[in-house]
Amino acid sequence: METVKIIKIGGNVVDNPEKLSKFLRDFATLEGAKILVHGGGKIATKISESLGIKTTMIEGRRVTDKDTLGVVTMVYAGGVNKSIVSLLRAEGVNAFGLSGADGGLIISKKRAASPVDYGFVGDPIIEKFSVECASMLIDAGFIPVVAPITISEQGELLNTNADTVASTIAQALASKYKIELVYCFEKRGVLTDVNCEDSVISEITPEYFEELKAQGVIVDGMLPKLTNAFKAIGNGVEKVVICSSDMVAAKGYGGTTLKS
Amino acid sequence: METVKIIKIGGNVVDNPEKLSKFLRDFATLEGAKILVHGGGKIATKISESLGIKTTMIEGRRVTDKDTLGVVTMVYAGGVNKSIVSLLRAEGVNAFGLSGADGGLIISKKRAASPVDYGFVGDPIIEKFSVECASMLIDAGFIPVVAPITISEQGELLNTNADTVASTIAQALASKYKIELVYCFEKRGVLTDVNCEDSVISEITPEYFEELKAQGVIVDGMLPKLTNAFKAIGNGVEKVVICSSDMVAAKGYGGTTLKS
Repeated sequence: METVKIIKIGGNVVDNPEKLSKFLRDFATLEGAKILVHGGGKIATKISESLGIKTTMIEGRRVTDKDTLGVVTMVYAGGVNKSIVSLLRAEGVNAFGLSGADGGLIISKKRAASPVDYGFVGDPIIEKFSVECASMLIDAGFIPVVAPITISEQGELLNTNADTVASTIAQALASKYKIELVYCFEKRGVLTDVNCEDSVISEITPEYFEELKAQGVIVDGMLPKLTNAFKAIGNGVEKVVICSSDMVAAKGYGGTTLKS
Repeated sequence: METVKIIKIGGNVVDNPEKLSKFLRDFATLEGAKILVHGGGKIATKISESLGIKTTMIEGRRVTDKDTLGVVTMVYAGGVNKSIVSLLRAEGVNAFGLSGADGGLIISKKRAASPVDYGFVGDPIIEKFSVECASMLIDAGFIPVVAPITISEQGELLNTNADTVASTIAQALASKYKIELVYCFEKRGVLTDVNCEDSVISEITPEYFEELKAQGVIVDGMLPKLTNAFKAIGNGVEKVVICSSDMVAAKGYGGTTLKS
C-alpha cells in the first residue's frame, strides 16, 4: 500500500506569510504522495468587515450566513488556496488546488438549525467522499491542496471545519492507502504541562489517552482534537501526528504520535 | 475522436444571476464532454472599491497590480468559480472547478512591462498547456469549470483574458478531441448591421471573413475576436460558434459558425 501524508495547517500558519513560506518549503521536501488541507485564517473576517458584513461567532465558531458564505468561499477557495498553489509550484511541487465542492470530492450534510443555527455549515459524510476523485489526482502525481468548503448533495456550498476535512479525507482514503495524518497547531505537540513546550508526550495509545483524560492532563480544545484523531485511527488511519508547522520535515515530524 | 464542447461566458452572464442560472440549466442539457470557461465580471471591481484598492483600466483592460491580483484571484477562482460549480452540481452536472494554475493546467508568460505595464497579466503558452491534466478530468467524466487565472513557469499567478483561456484550451486539446468552441457574448452572433439583431451571419469561412473585413462590416471588438477564432480553426479546432448565452441549447446554438 502506498503511503499518503495528509497535512493540515490552520489560521496561525495561513495568516503568517513567513511561517507559511517556511512550512511550504518544508512540505515540498516531503517524499511521496501528500495532500495539504488548509484552514481560512483571519483574512475572511477582515474582508467581511471591509464589505460591511458582520461576523458573528458563537462559542468560537463562525456563523455562516449567505453573505459570509460568499466571503469565505472567495477567501478560502480562491485567495488562500491559489496563493498556496502558487508558492508550492514555485517550489517545484505539482500542486492542484481544489475545494471539497469540486468534483463532489467532499459531500456534507448541512448542520441542523437547532440548538444553534450556524447557517451554511456542513459536516462531511465519510461514506459519500469521492475516493475516485482523490485517487485520480494522487495517482496522476498531483499534490491536492484542499480548501475547507464542501457541498451538499443538493449542490449547496457549505463552510466546513478544516480539521474535520482532513480527518474525513484520511478516513475515506484509508482503505486504499496507508495514511499518515498530521495536524499542525500552535504547540509542539500534546503537552503534559500547557505552559512548558518541553513537556511534549511523544506517543499516545488509546489506553494512555484514557489515563491522561482521567488524570485531567487533556482538557479543553485538546479533548475533541484527540477524540477525533483516535476515531480516525479506529477507522484505519495508520497514525496521527500532532505538532507545530515548523516541525514538518522529511526526516520526521517529532511532536505527539497517536497510534492504535 | 470524442467531441468536447468548450463554452466561454463573460461578465454579462456572470454578473446577471437570472441569465447565469438560465444559461447553466441549458449548459447542463448539452450532451457529452464539455468545459465551461468563465470571465470575471464587475464583482472584482466592486470588491476592490470596498477594500480601497483603485481599479485602473487602460484601453478597456484592467491593470493588475499585486493587490488587484489578490482580489481577482479571490473573486474569479473562488467566488465566481465555486458559485458556478454549486449551481451546476445542483443541476446534476459533475462540475469540477479549477483555475489555470491548478495542476499547471495553463502556463502563461507574464506580459512585458512595455509599451504598457498591465502588471500581473499573462499570455498562455499553448505548447505548455497540460493536455494530461485536462484529459484526466474529461476522461474521468468531470466537467471542468475554468477560472481565468493562470500561472507562470516560476509559479506566479497571472490574470488572463478569458477568451484567450478558452481558445488556448481549444487549440491544445484539438490533437486529442474534436473541439467545438462557443463564445457567448452580448449579441446573437456576428451581425452585418450592428443595430439589427436579425442580421446574424450564419456561417463565415476564412475567404468570406476577408471579404467582410474589406467591406468594413467587421470592425472594432469583433475584429480581434474573429481573428483569434480563425487562428484556433487554423490550429485544428473543428468549429467556432459566436452567439449569445441564451442560445446555447442541446439542439444547437444558432448564431454565427466559423469554419475552415
